[in-house]
Formats: sequence, structure tokens, C-alpha cells
Amino acid sequence: MNQQKQNLMDLFSTVNRYFSPKIVGEVNEVFIKIVKVKGQDVPWHTHQNEDEMFYVIKGCLNIECKGSDIIQLDSGEFFVVSKGIEHRVYAEEECWLMLIENKSTSHTGNVQSPITKTIGQQYY
Amino acid sequence: MNQQKQNLMDLFSTVNRYFSPKIVGEVNEVFIKIVKVKGQDVPWHTHQNEDEMFYVIKGCLNIECKGSDIIQLDSGEFFVVSKGIEHRVYAEEECWLMLIENKSTSHTGNVQSPITKTIGQQYY
Repeated sequence: MNQQKQNLMDLFSTVNRYFSPKIVGEVNEVFIKIVKVKGQDVPWHTHQNEDEMFYVIKGCLNIECKGSDIIQLDSGEFFVVSKGIEHRVYAEEECWLMLIENKSTSHTGNVQSPITKTIGQQYY
Repeated sequence: MNQQKQNLMDLFSTVNRYFSPKIVGEVNEVFIKIVKVKGQDVPWHTHQNEDEMFYVIKGCLNIECKGSDIIQLDSGEFFVVSKGIEHRVYAEEECWLMLIENKSTSHTGNVQSPITKTIGQQYY
């Protein structure tokens, strides 16, 4: 999947569901994904052994880490949720994200929720 | 280094040398770096066991892979150079990049060149 150049905005234009990450690249043990989010559907969850990076391409994302103040990310801002931190993300308006996470990372951790997708479901 | 949100453009504003990657985040075994390039200073090199992603934030980047046509990446476009592929990148005008590569990746492979930086030199 990595043999052609790709345009991030073109890829976003093909995403027509919220909370449905799509794999757009792989670099060794990590996937680069894009996702559109709107609402509060992501459950509290933890990735015990894996960091996860959120980079806002468009809109505004709220990241809540247990016991900490809410982090508000605007377009062009990013944050890495360190392994072991219980967290959830939500957006009041439509928000476009690039995610960088290990191939082994389940996007809702060990929590099964209505939005949970398998890795197979995240391929184009 | 991952406990605060960061703004990509603010980070770029602190970069005042070409071909000098700076680590802005880490996600498990990969570094997220930013770099400004202008000119043809990057030597042909290979990462034998490591993929490397180039995402153009601003400007235009040329990626040459041995035996293939030159890939021209404009702003918003990205490309993953697969492990084992001999390559070099260059830009006629100033170009801003996000790089995603393994922590173990030397940015000029096994080639020592005037632009080569150690990982230590890539930290802020």
C-alpha cells in the first residue's frame, strides 16, 4: 500500500463515517490512520503498552486523560497519549485527525463499544 | 517530551537550519520529526530494515528512488519509502516536512555526509 504518493485531503474526502479509522500508511510497526470524529462515542479506554498520537488536521479535538485537565487541540496541534493512560476523545463539531499508533493497537483498547472496528475493517 | 500538546507551525518557526531534523514526538518505536530542506544535500542512502514516511507540510519535495521515476510531493501529500530502497530527497525551494521513522533510523542511512546528525543532535 505504500508504493504511491497519497494526498491527505483526498483521502479524507472518501471517509463518510465518524469514528471509523482508515489506515493510509504503514511505517514499520506503526500505522498512520485518518479518522473523522464528531460526538462523544469514544469510550474511556487504555492502551496498556502503546502510545498513541493525535494530530488535528481540521477542527478541534478534546482529549481527556483520567485525573488531568481536558486538552483542547486545534488544527495543527498534536498530543501523544502515553501508554497506560486511561483516556477518551470527543469533538463537538466535525474534527479530522491523523493518528499514529502501533499496528497492534486496538483503537478503543480492551473496551468493546458500538464504534469499535477491527484492524481488518480499517483497511481501505 | 510527550506530556504537552504541541503546535506544528510553532515548532517549525524554531527550526533555523536546513537538513537538521528535530524530534517533536515519540510513539512507541517511532519518532515524529520535523525538518526543513532546501537543495540537494541529502546523499543517496538506504535504510535496510526501516520504512520512512515523508509528509509535506509546506512546499514541494522530490523523492528519487533508485530505478524509479521521481516522485513530486506537494503540500498535503505523503509517501512511504519502503525499507531497502536506495533513495534521496531534494527541494528546489524551502520545503517543510514531517518525518515518521523508527527511533533506530539514521536519517542518512549508513552514509556519513556533511548533513548527517546523530539522534542526540535531533532533540530539542
